[in-house]
Amino acid sequence: MAESVPLSTDRAPAHHEALDRLQTLVADDLSRVNQIILDRMQSSIPLIPQLAGHLVSSGGKRLRPMLTLASAQMLAYDGRRHEGLAACVEFIHTATLLHDDVVDESDLRRGIESANAVWGNKPSVLVGDFLFSRSFELMVEDGSLDVLRILSRAAGIIAEGEVLQLTTSNDLGTTEEAYLEVIGAKTAALFAAACEVAAVVAGRPQAEWDALKAYGHNLGVAFQLVDDILDYSAKQAELGKSLGDDFREGKITLPVIIAHSRGTDEERAFWVRTLEDTEQVDGDLDHAIALVRRHEALAETAARAQSFGEAARRALDPFPDNEAKRLLLDIVDFCIDRVY
Amino acid sequence: MAESVPLSTDRAPAHHEALDRLQTLVADDLSRVNQIILDRMQSSIPLIPQLAGHLVSSGGKRLRPMLTLASAQMLAYDGRRHEGLAACVEFIHTATLLHDDVVDESDLRRGIESANAVWGNKPSVLVGDFLFSRSFELMVEDGSLDVLRILSRAAGIIAEGEVLQLTTSNDLGTTEEAYLEVIGAKTAALFAAACEVAAVVAGRPQAEWDALKAYGHNLGVAFQLVDDILDYSAKQAELGKSLGDDFREGKITLPVIIAHSRGTDEERAFWVRTLEDTEQVDGDLDHAIALVRRHEALAETAARAQSFGEAARRALDPFPDNEAKRLLLDIVDFCIDRVY
Repeated sequence: MAESVPLSTDRAPAHHEALDRLQTLVADDLSRVNQIILDRMQSSIPLIPQLAGHLVSSGGKRLRPMLTLASAQMLAYDGRRHEGLAACVEFIHTATLLHDDVVDESDLRRGIESANAVWGNKPSVLVGDFLFSRSFELMVEDGSLDVLRILSRAAGIIAEGEVLQLTTSNDLGTTEEAYLEVIGAKTAALFAAACEVAAVVAGRPQAEWDALKAYGHNLGVAFQLVDDILDYSAKQAELGKSLGDDFREGKITLPVIIAHSRGTDEERAFWVRTLEDTEQVDGDLDHAIALVRRHEALAETAARAQSFGEAARRALDPFPDNEAKRLLLDIVDFCIDRVY
Repeated sequence: MAESVPLSTDRAPAHHEALDRLQTLVADDLSRVNQIILDRMQSSIPLIPQLAGHLVSSGGKRLRPMLTLASAQMLAYDGRRHEGLAACVEFIHTATLLHDDVVDESDLRRGIESANAVWGNKPSVLVGDFLFSRSFELMVEDGSLDVLRILSRAAGIIAEGEVLQLTTSNDLGTTEEAYLEVIGAKTAALFAAACEVAAVVAGRPQAEWDALKAYGHNLGVAFQLVDDILDYSAKQAELGKSLGDDFREGKITLPVIIAHSRGTDEERAFWVRTLEDTEQVDGDLDHAIALVRRHEALAETAARAQSFGEAARRALDPFPDNEAKRLLLDIVDFCIDRVY
């Protein structure tokens, strides 16, 4: 049987370096953002920077804050407000991860022990709350009610998306539409807000806010689709993540929705036992991986990611060509190419 | 042995009705606040209003939002902004309770099953996040950066206070000072912010913001001291709360700090075993209650609550006498008199 996600040949290996080039482009801004992050996660209570630092310095790509920075550069914004907001976006993301790990009972995050595995659930919940509050303090300091509206709305949408994901967990009746709603909320909303606020601070017209929001949203959906592919893909281990986390938690992701819909009665019974009843035994993950491959569910999901990636690229049409824009386009490919 | 908290004779029974009178004073405003709360906890995801509603309608006194409303009335504020902010304060409080119950692994809240006991930890964490976000959306709609600063700062202080409490839990070396820092943050910060924002929306000078903040802070400390007394007091069961929650969780509260400091070697060994090592057996709670009584630790804690209550009352000195001010003064006695 062929590998389900074929290497597409129209993709230059250069895309794999898009993240490096993006990091180079925003390096100065990003180092100031990192300093803001370090400064603002401080507290007189040592456990807070310890726990927050565990996650903040655990090898995250800083993709979301880099989107804010690169978007601002694309718009030739020459102020400094985007730096505080990029830190704010990363705080919201980090807080979400802390609460996610409690919710998921994950033991690993980016290949290292998750904060809740090291310190327990209690500090993870509370330090997450602390980081949320800090993110709001950063927004308040920025002083734009538009920024506050965009980012606080995003935080609300993320929380709703996470709850929706819980209620669709273990439910094989979840439609592709419901699944896309979940990832649009839990992942894409913050990507969208991270990009949109750049247009706000740059003082651009509403149409450009919307364009950057659309770019971020579609990129975020593509990113999450690829994440969901990776959970069933051999590529995952290379990225320092544990394979099969979603499967073990009974998360209904698009690869499963597709494999289940195309499955035999016997295969459907397998999905019901493992994901709805979460009765899993040794070998089930391997069988699940074989099934999503057999039905080309990963390739199908990758095709969806490509479509969303296309939409992200198109959303940047209104903007004039420059180095930052080219990198924002390339980063779409980077997000999708992670599966290859 | 005498009851450790003597009935003081200079207290009219009328104080017990202060809450009723406060509710009457702000009844119209409060019913609009309740409507805002109901409207704003809605979501297309049914679990969110279900879970939020469980707590929102579970017999909370709405003390914090009433403080905002009564403070605004005392200042003769005739707008409507205080209503949205009162709802915001209640959302922050409710979110904190949801996360607290996860953190404390509590099964009861106000005498009924806690949300985490009914739905599990996951939805409680996430719906708490949702309510936090909603509270920020309400602030953003209000549109005052001063309000946003005050309330987002309060949310941060609460989270810090909760983490500090975790790190002092099970540590009998906790000083009274450290304990007061914890309750100043985890409880009093929101009381303070709830009152202060009323002065902001009423357009009053900074000195009045500070006065109302001081009132709220001192009232909040007194309130929490009394809560900590009640956990070791027969009065607790009458209030529909379970006795000994703090004891079982190894929380080091002022009654314990006092009883421990005044205890014999044998008594100290008891506190170490039960609270630091959390090795508890049947009869330990009764023995703990006997010890805090023997050392008059509840009476001593009540005396501290009285001092903070006095400070709260004095903080209102700058304001002219009116019905709302008299009730804000009486509510101090109500908060303290809960122990009697």
